[in-house]
Amino acid sequence: MSSAPHLFDEMPKPTPAPMPVDLSKYSKRVLLKTILDRGDGGLGLVDQRVVVGGWVKSSREMRKDHPPAGGDAKEATGGKDVKCVEVFQSRIPFLRTIIKVFGGNTAHTKEKLESVLPKPATPSISVLQISDGSSIISFQIMVDSSIAPPSQLMPIGTCILAEGVLQKPSLQGKHAIELKAEKLLHIGIVDQDNYPLSKKSLPLARLRDCTHFRPRTTTVASVMKVRNGLNQASHTFFQNHGFIHVEVPIITATNTEGFSDIFQVSTSKSFAKEQKKEVSMDDTENISLETVKLSIVEKSKKVEELKRSDSNKEALAAAVQDLHKTNLLAAELEARSKSKSKSKSKTESIKTGDGFFSNQAFLTTSGSLHLESCASALGNVYAFGPRFQADKSESRKYLAEKWMIETEMAFSELEDAMNCAEDFLKSVSNWVSENCYENLYFLSKRVDKTILDRLNSLASTVFEKITYTTAVEVLSKVTDKTFETKIHWGVALTEEHESYLVDEFYKKPVIIYDHPKDLKPFNVRLNDDGKTVAAFDVIIPKVGALIRGSQKEERLNHLTKRIKELGLKKDQYEWYLDLRKQGTVKHSGFNATFDVMVLFATGLNDVRDAVPFPRHNGKIHN
Amino acid sequence: MSSAPHLFDEMPKPTPAPMPVDLSKYSKRVLLKTILDRGDGGLGLVDQRVVVGGWVKSSREMRKDHPPAGGDAKEATGGKDVKCVEVFQSRIPFLRTIIKVFGGNTAHTKEKLESVLPKPATPSISVLQISDGSSIISFQIMVDSSIAPPSQLMPIGTCILAEGVLQKPSLQGKHAIELKAEKLLHIGIVDQDNYPLSKKSLPLARLRDCTHFRPRTTTVASVMKVRNGLNQASHTFFQNHGFIHVEVPIITATNTEGFSDIFQVSTSKSFAKEQKKEVSMDDTENISLETVKLSIVEKSKKVEELKRSDSNKEALAAAVQDLHKTNLLAAELEARSKSKSKSKSKTESIKTGDGFFSNQAFLTTSGSLHLESCASALGNVYAFGPRFQADKSESRKYLAEKWMIETEMAFSELEDAMNCAEDFLKSVSNWVSENCYENLYFLSKRVDKTILDRLNSLASTVFEKITYTTAVEVLSKVTDKTFETKIHWGVALTEEHESYLVDEFYKKPVIIYDHPKDLKPFNVRLNDDGKTVAAFDVIIPKVGALIRGSQKEERLNHLTKRIKELGLKKDQYEWYLDLRKQGTVKHSGFNATFDVMVLFATGLNDVRDAVPFPRHNGKIHN
Repeated sequence: MSSAPHLFDEMPKPTPAPMPVDLSKYSKRVLLKTILDRGDGGLGLVDQRVVVGGWVKSSREMRKDHPPAGGDAKEATGGKDVKCVEVFQSRIPFLRTIIKVFGGNTAHTKEKLESVLPKPATPSISVLQISDGSSIISFQIMVDSSIAPPSQLMPIGTCILAEGVLQKPSLQGKHAIELKAEKLLHIGIVDQDNYPLSKKSLPLARLRDCTHFRPRTTTVASVMKVRNGLNQASHTFFQNHGFIHVEVPIITATNTEGFSDIFQVSTSKSFAKEQKKEVSMDDTENISLETVKLSIVEKSKKVEELKRSDSNKEALAAAVQDLHKTNLLAAELEARSKSKSKSKSKTESIKTGDGFFSNQAFLTTSGSLHLESCASALGNVYAFGPRFQADKSESRKYLAEKWMIETEMAFSELEDAMNCAEDFLKSVSNWVSENCYENLYFLSKRVDKTILDRLNSLASTVFEKITYTTAVEVLSKVTDKTFETKIHWGVALTEEHESYLVDEFYKKPVIIYDHPKDLKPFNVRLNDDGKTVAAFDVIIPKVGALIRGSQKEERLNHLTKRIKELGLKKDQYEWYLDLRKQGTVKHSGFNATFDVMVLFATGLNDVRDAVPFPRHNGKIHN
Repeated sequence: MSSAPHLFDEMPKPTPAPMPVDLSKYSKRVLLKTILDRGDGGLGLVDQRVVVGGWVKSSREMRKDHPPAGGDAKEATGGKDVKCVEVFQSRIPFLRTIIKVFGGNTAHTKEKLESVLPKPATPSISVLQISDGSSIISFQIMVDSSIAPPSQLMPIGTCILAEGVLQKPSLQGKHAIELKAEKLLHIGIVDQDNYPLSKKSLPLARLRDCTHFRPRTTTVASVMKVRNGLNQASHTFFQNHGFIHVEVPIITATNTEGFSDIFQVSTSKSFAKEQKKEVSMDDTENISLETVKLSIVEKSKKVEELKRSDSNKEALAAAVQDLHKTNLLAAELEARSKSKSKSKSKTESIKTGDGFFSNQAFLTTSGSLHLESCASALGNVYAFGPRFQADKSESRKYLAEKWMIETEMAFSELEDAMNCAEDFLKSVSNWVSENCYENLYFLSKRVDKTILDRLNSLASTVFEKITYTTAVEVLSKVTDKTFETKIHWGVALTEEHESYLVDEFYKKPVIIYDHPKDLKPFNVRLNDDGKTVAAFDVIIPKVGALIRGSQKEERLNHLTKRIKELGLKKDQYEWYLDLRKQGTVKHSGFNATFDVMVLFATGLNDVRDAVPFPRHNGKIHN
């Protein structure tokens, strides 16, 4: 092809027809990200005819008697201008390479969504910024008032499906591309007075009242995408390391009776039978009422302490049950001292079953025991699903329904589980930094500017590993600060203690292991010292405890002894003890509260903002 | 490097040291698949020192006074021989390329697991086949009786962690490699009399009584790995197509009162208050008792029909409620005719809340409504989680707790959802065929020899798409077969009808769409004919309905009309109706019962064998 190059060079080139835009696979329109997330912001698609859809994020009206092109957009419009962050967002693709220079300018413009005007007498153009959820960037559509009245299109939240031609933006500087609508295939109107998102600058706390709408805000949509990314990242980590995903049961019979905080499951037909607690009162003869009352004070203190620490459900359950029994004992002794008559009933019967299940059924608080049975066959397993607690706690990290990631590994000891937990968090942090960058960047402007740094730092820092005993020593030496809960060996570390260790002392993630046995679940492996167990907590800057793990007790005699000590109902654990009787294996694992991982990655402070439909004490709206 | 090549060629080559075997990342041993799944079956690792662990799948004892090497294994041992499928399995890696020639020979040897002998007087070697869950193939370990007595090691299910050296097999022809144990780091003994898997050829139905042990059988382990594969394949499909994963709530307030089959959630403390049904009895004055009694007969028939069809929970709920009201009406009329007095109460109050939630809380039967709210913001979304029904049905496909995949797409219509459902099933079938081949191959020998063909055929066949009306026409013309439920337009298709269409008539997957509106949920979009709705079912050979989907009703007036017609409680749906009032969008989606997908892929017949811990009517064991 060396012949006559000059000739060809000088020939007028035909304008190349733009490549057709890919349709969304399962709807007859073009996803906005197909246009907006291109390197050129969509510029190469000029003159393409497309159908696009989405919800109006902001809008303004432009009167046609003002010159549309050239000059600044504000001057050009003549109509009312909506200064909103979505307009800023629309610049991102075009300026991706210099994105960082924008800095925090937009951080304080917070969702200033302005809306609608009455229909003007003069012809006008509705300038709409829409989003279809596929891109964080908004897309501009120009709709002539002869096609649809601005009053119908401009309210925030209006849904439109528009056909038209892509063109260079009519208003300089705002967008790389826009659509000149020729036909509206669908309009889903909005009743502004009753649409919660019509209001300007709605704080996250207010958005909790409309969980069915809030993903339409860029902030909540970004959170949900980061959440989706964390989900994918978690599966990727475990699958890449040969773990088998197992669906552990949600409805379970294995639960500690003493718990005051579990949900019971029944069919609505049989929602009637009162449940009676088993009350066993042996050895009550030789105890004085005074001794018992003193003991109640002590035991109440312990329960409160455990409740604050949020670390050990079984220990709490045992303490609650213990207190309950002691209270009953006191009541009985008191009654006896009054009536001088012997108490009649020693043990009341338990009412079980509800007609559907023939024994009592609960919503699971943890899939860990069931996972152990799978690990004792398949090796490495993990579960990802909802878990439940009926505590009326007011913690920013607590929900009645939460999603957990749980894992269990056969032939594995405490150190292995700690290493796996650290690798897991690093892998997930890396993954979301890489794959959810745009959403994280947006959240760093809107919610917490440190999130990207924190994710990167977590991924590259070697976690500090210290024993509980070391942690107590460090905290005991603190002089410049007074902790609400005084520290001494045996006390459960509170959020305040943990925060001091990671945020102020070590200044990095800390794994605290070898806790006093009374602070950890019944099935954690007893260490040789006889007083600590092979459990660990991973404490992360800003969010606190994110992962709790342990090596499980594989020795039958130790496990049965512990079940007895804690007053758990052995017959509920027969199947679990079987695992120790038949081919027992050393194994360890951990659980991560997925919702708290979302807090960490997004910088949010309250878990109610981090889950799609939070469930907590009070009225459920949907 | 062309100098003196001959010299180098003639020099004696040092035996290359075998490459070290990778340790399992989170335990200090070598995963068996690292050895067994190599192309050479592990042969290249001879002389390596390794630690391996696992559970004994079969065993035999070999007396040392017989020559160990050469000749047939059976002759060589002199001890008792266990002919079991795991021995066959052990040949697979070595003979992978000619695997198909083995054909069905092993299909009828079913888990003949033999066990233990008393300790012999003479020195002997325990020959153990172990599995650690990482590979479908067993691994052979030789343990001299001086290290541990055979009586302790040989019971099926014994867990061992052994250190030793890899060597060529002492017994010709059985394995590519074996371990000569030098040290046992752990033995988890088995009490044979109480270990359910000690028994030979345990059928799957019997294994349901020991869900905590059954993944130790190769069959159940394979099922769980295919299940894991389907999970991964599903996430992969949706993520590749830009769907956002959303965790829809398990505890919900949105449920149809008329349902007889939902679970109620309460805290155990408040498990007391009887719930009273709302009974509204208007227009009772002018109806005769006889008319009402006739109507009860009709309505009972309809309920039974809907129950059999398993297709439409809302229609069933409406029918049940309708019947319930009619019964109440009859009772009232009867009472009135006796006492001649007017009924006092028109409407009784509902008892709501349980102290934790201030209104009634249920376990969700479907995440579809909540997904719609997310789709109306994010575009394409999907959910993967547990769903609940309290039916006491005896179907092989029914469980009280089941895992579902649900998806919803904005700007999408019926056809889009049908295409997506078809692509989804094809993609998933392809994925598991490629990634779970060994487990599928094993299951094809043990459970159903057609599974690989069925998966491949599903992936390559264009599904037949017919309307409900066409389906009824086809079924009406059938003369060589009598259906239990007589077919006519308006009747719900039963499993028998569906099976005829896919297995005998079309001989491929069939999508049946445009069903009568009374057979489908209240929120399916009404077609222009006013009597059918934009719903579809995907019927697959052998398993029947696997996916149900629809385009949702986006028009407020149609939806409110339908809610009224079916007697649903409008106030429970306020938030859902909001989605139609504020920026409504056309949208469609579908749900797939994940557990039934496992039936399809594994060839199993009963869903209780396809989930790790089945939950159905009766006692829950764990």
